[in-house]
Amino acid sequence: MSDTNLSAVLFKAKDLQLVERPICEPGKGEVQLCMQKVGICGSDVHYWQEGRIGDRFVVQAPMLLGHECSATVTKVGDGVTHPKSVTVWLSSPMACAGNAMHARLAATTCARMFSSWPRPLTVVPSPDTTCMERTSLPDNVSFEEGALIEPLSVGLHACRRARLSMGHRVLVCGAGPIGLCAMLSAKAFGAAAVCVTDIDSGRLEFAKKLGASHTLLIEKGQTEEQVAAKVAETLGAAPDRTIECSGAQFSVNLGVYATKPGGVFVIVGHGPSKVEFPVVSLVAKEIAILGSFRYINTWQTAIDMISCGKINVAPLVTHRFTLEDTLAAFETARSGVGVKVMIDCAKHEKK
Amino acid sequence: MSDTNLSAVLFKAKDLQLVERPICEPGKGEVQLCMQKVGICGSDVHYWQEGRIGDRFVVQAPMLLGHECSATVTKVGDGVTHPKSVTVWLSSPMACAGNAMHARLAATTCARMFSSWPRPLTVVPSPDTTCMERTSLPDNVSFEEGALIEPLSVGLHACRRARLSMGHRVLVCGAGPIGLCAMLSAKAFGAAAVCVTDIDSGRLEFAKKLGASHTLLIEKGQTEEQVAAKVAETLGAAPDRTIECSGAQFSVNLGVYATKPGGVFVIVGHGPSKVEFPVVSLVAKEIAILGSFRYINTWQTAIDMISCGKINVAPLVTHRFTLEDTLAAFETARSGVGVKVMIDCAKHEKK
Amino acid sequence: MSDTNLSAVLFKAKDLQLVERPICEPGKGEVQLCMQKVGICGSDVHYWQEGRIGDRFVVQAPMLLGHECSATVTKVGDGVTHPKSVTVWLSSPMACAGNAMHARLAATTCARMFSSWPRPLTVVPSPDTTCMERTSLPDNVSFEEGALIEPLSVGLHACRRARLSMGHRVLVCGAGPIGLCAMLSAKAFGAAAVCVTDIDSGRLEFAKKLGASHTLLIEKGQTEEQVAAKVAETLGAAPDRTIECSGAQFSVNLGVYATKPGGVFVIVGHGPSKVEFPVVSLVAKEIAILGSFRYINTWQTAIDMISCGKINVAPLVTHRFTLEDTLAAFETARSGVGVKVMIDCAKHEKK
Amino acid sequence: MSDTNLSAVLFKAKDLQLVERPICEPGKGEVQLCMQKVGICGSDVHYWQEGRIGDRFVVQAPMLLGHECSATVTKVGDGVTHPKSVTVWLSSPMACAGNAMHARLAATTCARMFSSWPRPLTVVPSPDTTCMERTSLPDNVSFEEGALIEPLSVGLHACRRARLSMGHRVLVCGAGPIGLCAMLSAKAFGAAAVCVTDIDSGRLEFAKKLGASHTLLIEKGQTEEQVAAKVAETLGAAPDRTIECSGAQFSVNLGVYATKPGGVFVIVGHGPSKVEFPVVSLVAKEIAILGSFRYINTWQTAIDMISCGKINVAPLVTHRFTLEDTLAAFETARSGVGVKVMIDCAKHEKK
Repeated sequence: MSDTNLSAVLFKAKDLQLVERPICEPGKGEVQLCMQKVGICGSDVHYWQEGRIGDRFVVQAPMLLGHECSATVTKVGDGVTHPKSVTVWLSSPMACAGNAMHARLAATTCARMFSSWPRPLTVVPSPDTTCMERTSLPDNVSFEEGALIEPLSVGLHACRRARLSMGHRVLVCGAGPIGLCAMLSAKAFGAAAVCVTDIDSGRLEFAKKLGASHTLLIEKGQTEEQVAAKVAETLGAAPDRTIECSGAQFSVNLGVYATKPGGVFVIVGHGPSKVEFPVVSLVAKEIAILGSFRYINTWQTAIDMISCGKINVAPLVTHRFTLEDTLAAFETARSGVGVKVMIDCAKHEKK
Repeated sequence: MSDTNLSAVLFKAKDLQLVERPICEPGKGEVQLCMQKVGICGSDVHYWQEGRIGDRFVVQAPMLLGHECSATVTKVGDGVTHPKSVTVWLSSPMACAGNAMHARLAATTCARMFSSWPRPLTVVPSPDTTCMERTSLPDNVSFEEGALIEPLSVGLHACRRARLSMGHRVLVCGAGPIGLCAMLSAKAFGAAAVCVTDIDSGRLEFAKKLGASHTLLIEKGQTEEQVAAKVAETLGAAPDRTIECSGAQFSVNLGVYATKPGGVFVIVGHGPSKVEFPVVSLVAKEIAILGSFRYINTWQTAIDMISCGKINVAPLVTHRFTLEDTLAAFETARSGVGVKVMIDCAKHEKK
Repeated sequence: MSDTNLSAVLFKAKDLQLVERPICEPGKGEVQLCMQKVGICGSDVHYWQEGRIGDRFVVQAPMLLGHECSATVTKVGDGVTHPKSVTVWLSSPMACAGNAMHARLAATTCARMFSSWPRPLTVVPSPDTTCMERTSLPDNVSFEEGALIEPLSVGLHACRRARLSMGHRVLVCGAGPIGLCAMLSAKAFGAAAVCVTDIDSGRLEFAKKLGASHTLLIEKGQTEEQVAAKVAETLGAAPDRTIECSGAQFSVNLGVYATKPGGVFVIVGHGPSKVEFPVVSLVAKEIAILGSFRYINTWQTAIDMISCGKINVAPLVTHRFTLEDTLAAFETARSGVGVKVMIDCAKHEKK
Repeated sequence: MSDTNLSAVLFKAKDLQLVERPICEPGKGEVQLCMQKVGICGSDVHYWQEGRIGDRFVVQAPMLLGHECSATVTKVGDGVTHPKSVTVWLSSPMACAGNAMHARLAATTCARMFSSWPRPLTVVPSPDTTCMERTSLPDNVSFEEGALIEPLSVGLHACRRARLSMGHRVLVCGAGPIGLCAMLSAKAFGAAAVCVTDIDSGRLEFAKKLGASHTLLIEKGQTEEQVAAKVAETLGAAPDRTIECSGAQFSVNLGVYATKPGGVFVIVGHGPSKVEFPVVSLVAKEIAILGSFRYINTWQTAIDMISCGKINVAPLVTHRFTLEDTLAAFETARSGVGVKVMIDCAKHEKK
């Protein structure tokens, strides 16, 4: 275990620094974690570049970035009996409490967690007093895969919200990491066909390699209705379910036009705070538009599906950096090359 | 039974005439109906004034108006065995076929209906070959109440789409006939409280008398967020379910802001074909927006609820006319005074 | 506030005694309660008479009886900030922890509760470390009604499990307190008709007065199929939903025969641990049999429905005793006269 | 097309004969079919051996056996416009009407079908006037696979009834054709693991080859509770869903003991008309037992899943016979060797 606590701290927009932080000892009902792998999320880049995400999330104090992570438990506080034999933990952004938040991208952390970890906390009162979901990784799930459980969970939750089921034709708007996780999830839910759209043909090639049955390039000058017709042609019928992961107003309209009557259209992507949409089509076709925000109760299922081989997230990682190269990692993520940029926080015998 | 077939025919926008039509004999698997009561729907007035509803429904040939109706069966064709003892029928706009459509507002009609009337036709192939829903009226349900089953069904269906359930706090936007039917339905589903909004205080008084637990006047200059806060204050908490029946862009936005996180917002009202709405709130609050269009499988339930006294639609009728005064009835409906205008097509021993 | 802590303690089968107990001070995150009203449940009588309920629940150590109760908060421990202004509490059998369990039927208790009481704990790890549901009573809900929220919750939860909805025809088997609460709940969910069965005509009269639309006496010598046919005749059609609250094998079979194809049959009652049932009917009619155990997340809804007047539980109380007469109260409950026996633990200005 | 109409007719129990039947011409709204492949169902063998299935289905008149079939349309009657270009049809036992039933196992049939075939008939009034589900086969689905869509549909429908979803652990009781179809379906719905039980180790080996992740042999002397514990050990946790396809009383009890609290237990198998089951466990664990009977709206989904390669039913066919060898085919099916016995009714260019 490292005796340093190097952390990537965002002080204000565009001011991300690597600084040394003290190591905390776990208090009663707490555990100390050693971070292994951390993936960079689009929201991390957004915070870094803008200092905020919309009006709801604004960087006030120095903020630790990185919430897609896997870790090992290095010490446990009083009253923590269950995880004694547990050496690997996952933690979400909601998983660390109080000043332990600083430890996010660090080699060692002292996340304040409930001692009662095996309890399925389906409702969590506040992000600063408890942790949302964490569990142990089986032997055949790597730390990198562990760090990908967070974005995968966004896709799984969207499919659950959509009540996506066996045999569905599915449209996924956007071939970024979340769109790809939604596509992988839709296939795991038994979709007969998944069509992924994007404005970047390179991303669509990646989606195809990863397992999308169909892809469709959105080109300039096309209307939403025209693309909707192409989607139906591509899938053999209008999609039963649409999952919007691009944040584009175009896709919000496409979703309403493309989804079949009685179908479900889930919006995951964050874009402009208001968009215009064809409400009369929504009513006449009896479509449901469902907002999907993060996830809940997905951790164990995601691990099971990776462990049994039904979902393969490993190919999502296209770039890898060490903790010391965190700033270069963020630059890479910002540039838009590749899909998922992963930071290796610790040397560990496990892959 | 009358030997005339006086019909209200819409030839083109603003050209509604009362004309005599031939009486058809029922063919194989068909029944001949004698209309009793017909209510005027907002869409009837809209067709009359505009000659169309949006781009999807345009008056091409002379069109019969009136679909909220109750009737008696006067003759049955070959193969129609079941309804022999049935003397009262309800018919929907989808319930009559072919040239029988002209008989809508007439004293006698020859709706082409399936012989197999007791069959619960949940999926109907085409409006011109079959009828959607019809059943017999029990003795304690009047023909006027029978004619109100159609608009009530719109409210019941919206509540079903919303999965509205016992104990819910409910917001209904709009105190017109559909809003009032949604309010009555929400109460029948067990809502603990129903708040109705409108821009007309007279309509709100009517809603209150009819059974709304709360009403809220929308005044000029208020923002959607401000009204959303007032709704929560009025109901004691943000509504679990919101049903939009006004067709106003304001209400579409109000619904998203007012509905509680994880709640359901059903849109019934038709207004502008596109509206701007706060998509980020939808996502962050994980709200569901559901389009609700007409109804399905509501007829028998509506009759049961009226017959057992749990829903009282009778007070909705504020104005009554004879068939000969149909044009005056339409004028009254257009003027906006009152709630439901009812036309009496036949003298009959039953009230 | 009383300075005694008189408690009804069950030492072993048939050995129920009133004893003085010490008063506990609330620790960190705990509150001290003063019990107001406590209702006697069938399970209390069963524990008293048999010393056990089945193989799962056996009286080992001296046990406090009474879990249908309302109370006021008299003291709060460190860290309990929220309920300061809350003077009335409800507590369930799961609501008190550790040695505080002795306080159940006492004038004063020191229930160990989570400090974080406003958190909606939908999943509770263990009955001895936390409390399930509690909330404050509004002014227009009496302590007696408060103590009835526990049995009412059993009925509400059964209806939720059944997805009982507006317009349903409902069969409730058994007219004891739980059957009556299920009947009241079914009506609140919008049932068009509720038929209650029992083998005791006096109970059925009570059910009728309380609001059952129909009742049916089960007489000796009738088969389940015969009674099922009578139920359909009584309700006008086979019930959409059946709720079994009698614990009788006869009713388990009746439920399968009576419920309409595609319907839902919820079993609440506890009787013999194994029963024979017509599995082929279950399959051919595609019925669902759902076990329903206690309740979850019902407290606030129950209070709302009582407060808004849509559910009236007050008439369930047929006998009242003081805390000192607890043994007489239990005798009355055991004898089967009346419906709900209520013990008044405290003199209080509120009714 | 053959000009003979050789048919396998069951005259009474144990009296199955191959007889020549006249060829019917299709009337108005009807089509004439040429059968291609017919699979033998356990119920066919049961009718043959017992002359009945329970009290509900008794052979009265000479009866045509065989309902798992694929066919081509050879002639269409008046008013049948849609299927002109459709050369391949599937038909269910409910798909033929009147005397056309004799054509089931014949080379040519004249099934009376609705002219309006593309209509999704979700509710069918009577088996003798319409057909339940039929659609055309895509080029990459063979006639044998087409004939397997019927038993596959039983498995798909059971999984739908169970609301089986991604990540579930599933227990399937019985490794006969229906159990195997349920296992294949559960995997297509995204099950993380499926454990199949049987009393025959050979069948379990077949299940394993076909894709079951786990199998468990039920041995004599084991109790249901003991096997339930083994199931949980095998799957890593108690199953979220259990699908009973064996018809054995043992499995009905196993399902209740094995399914996790809050889980769903679907019964498909037909065995004794009454069985004893642990009702108190059902209640205390809040399990749902759902009857599942045949299927509805599964045809198109089944074809899609076979066509896209996500479900592979082809290996289920272990024995093949010509139409002339029908009696030998039935003998083979009765003997219990192999899984699915298939009869080839016609020589056709398509496999």
